[in-house]
Amino acid sequence: MTTFSPAARSVLERQRIELPSWAFGNSGTRFRVFGQPGIPRDPFEKVADAAEVGRLTGLVGAVALHYPWDRVEDPATLRSFALEHGVALGTVNSNTFQDDEYMLGSLASTDAAVRRRAIDHHFACIDLMHATGSRDLKIWLADGTNYPGQSDMRERQDHLAASLAEIYSRIGEEQRLVLEYKFFEPAFYHTDVPDWGTSYAQVSALGDRALVCLDTGHHAPGTNIEFIVMQLLRLGKLGSFDFNSRFYADDDLIVGAADPFQLFRILVECLRGGAFEEDSQVAFMLDQCHNIERKIPAQIRSVLNVQEMTARALLLDRSALTAAQHEGDVLGANAILMDAFYTDVRPLLADLRAARGLPSDPMVAFATSGYQERVDRERVGGQQSGWGA
Amino acid sequence: MTTFSPAARSVLERQRIELPSWAFGNSGTRFRVFGQPGIPRDPFEKVADAAEVGRLTGLVGAVALHYPWDRVEDPATLRSFALEHGVALGTVNSNTFQDDEYMLGSLASTDAAVRRRAIDHHFACIDLMHATGSRDLKIWLADGTNYPGQSDMRERQDHLAASLAEIYSRIGEEQRLVLEYKFFEPAFYHTDVPDWGTSYAQVSALGDRALVCLDTGHHAPGTNIEFIVMQLLRLGKLGSFDFNSRFYADDDLIVGAADPFQLFRILVECLRGGAFEEDSQVAFMLDQCHNIERKIPAQIRSVLNVQEMTARALLLDRSALTAAQHEGDVLGANAILMDAFYTDVRPLLADLRAARGLPSDPMVAFATSGYQERVDRERVGGQQSGWGA
Amino acid sequence: MTTFSPAARSVLERQRIELPSWAFGNSGTRFRVFGQPGIPRDPFEKVADAAEVGRLTGLVGAVALHYPWDRVEDPATLRSFALEHGVALGTVNSNTFQDDEYMLGSLASTDAAVRRRAIDHHFACIDLMHATGSRDLKIWLADGTNYPGQSDMRERQDHLAASLAEIYSRIGEEQRLVLEYKFFEPAFYHTDVPDWGTSYAQVSALGDRALVCLDTGHHAPGTNIEFIVMQLLRLGKLGSFDFNSRFYADDDLIVGAADPFQLFRILVECLRGGAFEEDSQVAFMLDQCHNIERKIPAQIRSVLNVQEMTARALLLDRSALTAAQHEGDVLGANAILMDAFYTDVRPLLADLRAARGLPSDPMVAFATSGYQERVDRERVGGQQSGWGA
Amino acid sequence: MTTFSPAARSVLERQRIELPSWAFGNSGTRFRVFGQPGIPRDPFEKVADAAEVGRLTGLVGAVALHYPWDRVEDPATLRSFALEHGVALGTVNSNTFQDDEYMLGSLASTDAAVRRRAIDHHFACIDLMHATGSRDLKIWLADGTNYPGQSDMRERQDHLAASLAEIYSRIGEEQRLVLEYKFFEPAFYHTDVPDWGTSYAQVSALGDRALVCLDTGHHAPGTNIEFIVMQLLRLGKLGSFDFNSRFYADDDLIVGAADPFQLFRILVECLRGGAFEEDSQVAFMLDQCHNIERKIPAQIRSVLNVQEMTARALLLDRSALTAAQHEGDVLGANAILMDAFYTDVRPLLADLRAARGLPSDPMVAFATSGYQERVDRERVGGQQSGWGA
Repeated sequence: MTTFSPAARSVLERQRIELPSWAFGNSGTRFRVFGQPGIPRDPFEKVADAAEVGRLTGLVGAVALHYPWDRVEDPATLRSFALEHGVALGTVNSNTFQDDEYMLGSLASTDAAVRRRAIDHHFACIDLMHATGSRDLKIWLADGTNYPGQSDMRERQDHLAASLAEIYSRIGEEQRLVLEYKFFEPAFYHTDVPDWGTSYAQVSALGDRALVCLDTGHHAPGTNIEFIVMQLLRLGKLGSFDFNSRFYADDDLIVGAADPFQLFRILVECLRGGAFEEDSQVAFMLDQCHNIERKIPAQIRSVLNVQEMTARALLLDRSALTAAQHEGDVLGANAILMDAFYTDVRPLLADLRAARGLPSDPMVAFATSGYQERVDRERVGGQQSGWGA
Repeated sequence: MTTFSPAARSVLERQRIELPSWAFGNSGTRFRVFGQPGIPRDPFEKVADAAEVGRLTGLVGAVALHYPWDRVEDPATLRSFALEHGVALGTVNSNTFQDDEYMLGSLASTDAAVRRRAIDHHFACIDLMHATGSRDLKIWLADGTNYPGQSDMRERQDHLAASLAEIYSRIGEEQRLVLEYKFFEPAFYHTDVPDWGTSYAQVSALGDRALVCLDTGHHAPGTNIEFIVMQLLRLGKLGSFDFNSRFYADDDLIVGAADPFQLFRILVECLRGGAFEEDSQVAFMLDQCHNIERKIPAQIRSVLNVQEMTARALLLDRSALTAAQHEGDVLGANAILMDAFYTDVRPLLADLRAARGLPSDPMVAFATSGYQERVDRERVGGQQSGWGA
Repeated sequence: MTTFSPAARSVLERQRIELPSWAFGNSGTRFRVFGQPGIPRDPFEKVADAAEVGRLTGLVGAVALHYPWDRVEDPATLRSFALEHGVALGTVNSNTFQDDEYMLGSLASTDAAVRRRAIDHHFACIDLMHATGSRDLKIWLADGTNYPGQSDMRERQDHLAASLAEIYSRIGEEQRLVLEYKFFEPAFYHTDVPDWGTSYAQVSALGDRALVCLDTGHHAPGTNIEFIVMQLLRLGKLGSFDFNSRFYADDDLIVGAADPFQLFRILVECLRGGAFEEDSQVAFMLDQCHNIERKIPAQIRSVLNVQEMTARALLLDRSALTAAQHEGDVLGANAILMDAFYTDVRPLLADLRAARGLPSDPMVAFATSGYQERVDRERVGGQQSGWGA
Repeated sequence: MTTFSPAARSVLERQRIELPSWAFGNSGTRFRVFGQPGIPRDPFEKVADAAEVGRLTGLVGAVALHYPWDRVEDPATLRSFALEHGVALGTVNSNTFQDDEYMLGSLASTDAAVRRRAIDHHFACIDLMHATGSRDLKIWLADGTNYPGQSDMRERQDHLAASLAEIYSRIGEEQRLVLEYKFFEPAFYHTDVPDWGTSYAQVSALGDRALVCLDTGHHAPGTNIEFIVMQLLRLGKLGSFDFNSRFYADDDLIVGAADPFQLFRILVECLRGGAFEEDSQVAFMLDQCHNIERKIPAQIRSVLNVQEMTARALLLDRSALTAAQHEGDVLGANAILMDAFYTDVRPLLADLRAARGLPSDPMVAFATSGYQERVDRERVGGQQSGWGA
């Protein structure tokens, strides 16, 4: 009978995922944002929802903030509130895509005044990080162009390097800068940080505390994402994950929903490359939009998906695999990998939860908890939070 | 020296393109809609902007409406206004994606009440068409799902067929129903009309006045779009084009901006398949979003791009091409096609415009006309129109 | 504890897959074909290998032939040989891509003599089918062009229609013509049957016994294949599957190896659409290349993958799913689907095999059978079969 | 009237392109290699054909060799022969994909003996380079896997680094190592050098004379290739181009045939990044397969396409463009770029050729030269060269 090894069990007990505050707010496509009842009206309510996910799953370490969306009068109060609810305040995400000034770019803009504004915004984020105790400043840029010739890509790349250098010089000794790349959207001709190579080249020029953020939805069709995970771990430059899943573009669906086998392969490479070791500095975050499904259970489903696939990865018989690989046994090596993937770990994880005093089925526990009904009832009036709210 | 044949000249003189009313309003991505000055505040102002494009280019036949975005108290007044400004009111586009009720679908929904609502909306569109003198009812559906298992695709397809049949039975003898397909977005797992095959199968079941609408941005990466143009013309089922261009997904950029050679090939197949003949019923429309560029010159640029590529297609030496093709002369046949593409038709078209009493360079004519400055000044107060406004 | 319902068990007991004779021969990429020991030297040895897969799995119904690759002096003898070994001779695949005459096309060629040759080749295939007892004539065409303008796509489509009509008129009352489509390769600009819509339009023009063949590797990136399965079943035009899997293009990997969840979803739609019912006429075939792995175990692995995913599809709680779908319960409906996918059916299938007198683990049974060693030893001299051999 | 500036004229006069020896041999897809008459039977005849392209176009600087395909008894004789014919011997391409030993990889193989063999092969290539006077050793690897789990990607990456270090230590002071990347094929799950980031990370670890080779057909669908050109030039790591074009995968069509506007944009970035300056070390090579068209005119067409697009890029009004870009004039900047692209440079280039004593239309000059007829007649008997021959 399949069981977890002590080492595997230890990884599963330590595993923590960071939830994005914005996943609890309304979101949508360019065609429509559908509002839902019970949506948080301020960062405190977002943290409360994230904490509820953590209470039921034991898998939530922190809440990632988006600034200025999650601006509060006194960040220290939010921090205390979070800690009381069992979660930390995590990565601070800057936002240089929703002000009119940023229409043609921010850190890579050809306009010095716009770059200044965007750099100063990051300084404000760093100030916030000191107050929230956050380690990571995550930079995702909407910068790019829609038409060939619109802007000089080379000049922009140099501007970007200079802007990042200024921001990097400001972060604290215990802080890190993580630079996210994205294939396209919202820019439709070129994006200033379109691929891991660009992010890697840019952060390598900065220093040791500058790293790459890999969003699983930000690649060209067909890209072997686990290869990039392997490579960034090998180069010592994988800072964090933004987990989600996609069928087409940056669909921001629930992680593991579109291609569970891909998620498994990514987590196998994480294990292979040391990302689950105790001293690993890799941050595992979600970055998702729940446009048509309820937000809290969607986040529960997401962390469970990561947990289940991690568990499968941990069942991989590494020594048998290595032996088959070194013998050139193509079918044999593949079969060993697939065996781990096809094992149904759900009963094992239910046992593990029970042993940790957690509900064996967190989805059912939430559905019967009355939490949703309560917030649907209470969160009336005020301004629902959404993208930009 | 290159000149247009009389037949080519006739095509160019007759060529008319339909402009989308929504191209003059604000638009954007899910990340941000950037507002611009001078944006129309009602359908009359949109029609006025479209007419200005027509005045300068001689290329605008009609303005396509989006309902209920373009709802006016008295459609007959709008029609008169348009005709006075030299344009007709064209295709009526239904909208079943911005009401809360449509979150999980409209004509293909599993909920009978939702389908009823959506069908009734189309009846209202048909009523409007009688008032505006529009020939075509265009149906683009946001229907689809985000997660495998979310809904029963087969059941939805049958619901769609029944809904369309009910709508089709209501259109007038001189009216047509055109069904647009789209690869993905806003649904991210499945779309109920994802490809030309589905649209073709659905409209074939309806009757002769049901046709396919081909939006050039709605295909999978790498799709040979001109092949589909050829096939739909061959099958007698090409109802209309939604022109735009794209590098990645449904980017809705200016037609011809991303891949001018592709636009050329599409227009070559139009010519080959009879779509430019006098009795052709194919509607040539734009469907674009000008997120960061000014709206009116962007529309001028767009119709000029279609005109310039049509002119190149008309220069194609068809008999030499056929001869080379039948000889199996791969390089020779390709060279004949490329020769037409590489010919600079802009001076010829400037002459043609002069002969028609039009400005030889419509972009310059608009820039120096004062129109933009005037509307920027005048259109203050009221509600700017945008997607949904 | 999970068990199969009687109906599910019946489907699993009846399930038969057709193996391609060419999967047992050498294959490769344009860069290199790597030879293996023990490769069949004639169609009899291919049939023997296929029968061995059937003996160990109980899943093989027939061997698909490729003509003229599988030409034998007396087809009746091959048929008897096959039946003695427990398999039938199945689909006959025509080949119009390996003769010099077909460099620029075959059934769609602009050259009447080439079309004549290609049509006559199909007549020879039909003659063969009468001798082998095959029901299906499968037509996959390499026809297409590499350069825009090289040939007239419209003219070719009409030629194709005429050629197919002539072939269709020749098949027997109990025979069927299935037309396969493919996105690209070996033609790199246009392909004459590039998508299901084209295949559907062409076979619909022929008659009831003309159907579409869906090869799972022949689509654009991101295509929702199960949607097409659903649609073709709904339209009554799904003739057969060519199963394989891919990460990029037409990679022809082992079915289920690249995206097991996709295979599951395809089989769920098969079940939904009646393709597993007793009177279903859908042929389930493999079409794969085992370039670097051993051929026979690769075929065993393949049929087991289809079986395992069929078993998961059969575990789907359809009534609970329908209820959740009709309630608009996005997460609930998805969870019901995922529950079936995540269930480990392997022990259940091992029991089923034991009950049928089959080895519980066919991969192990083959590895320990001595079959491979024997053929490696015996099949020396003569001409190994490969693509084209 | 449009004319070239003296600087532009100088670039056009200096422009030289390297032709691949294998473009003159037979090639094809995995389905079929179609043979042609007049195909070279040894490297001398290949060089003669390349020289003929140069004689007619003035655009050929060197012939790239593939080893061991282009093995000759005495490389010095081949070098003299080439120089007498007006071309140099250029880049040496290693080949580690056609021997049985390389079935599961070469420089990245997990088998030390295989890696040894592959490294030694590169040593032999370096020896050859000393004899031929070649500057560049180009390494393209077929290394990769077809199935998840088949091999350990991380281990392979380390092996690759060690193998490359050994090879790099052997090249001469005036020589360079260029490492090509490729998205996929012939490996279908993972490729050991799949993207520019990996190639960049690997060559950066080696030293200044290790650079990246960019093959325009080796990217994921939708990739903005000119961005990569810009980035590699910015990082000082663009060693060479392998030009060709594609609609789908690595189609190896004539450069500029599939998307001429993309070729233009690439060459604009070359100009912007200094790749056309006198001291530039970027090698411009072709890497194409002429499967169905005649080889020599296809190569003439290819170098002309590069020349024509370079000429268009040189016509770009850079100062006007920069001004529009800095003003944020989206449509204006784009229009300046498009104006250069749409200018018909063919008459200007014909004049330039006449001034250089070259035929004004090299395609016509070749067709009427009798060269093809002569080699078709003379090159009978012996072994035609093809991929691997």
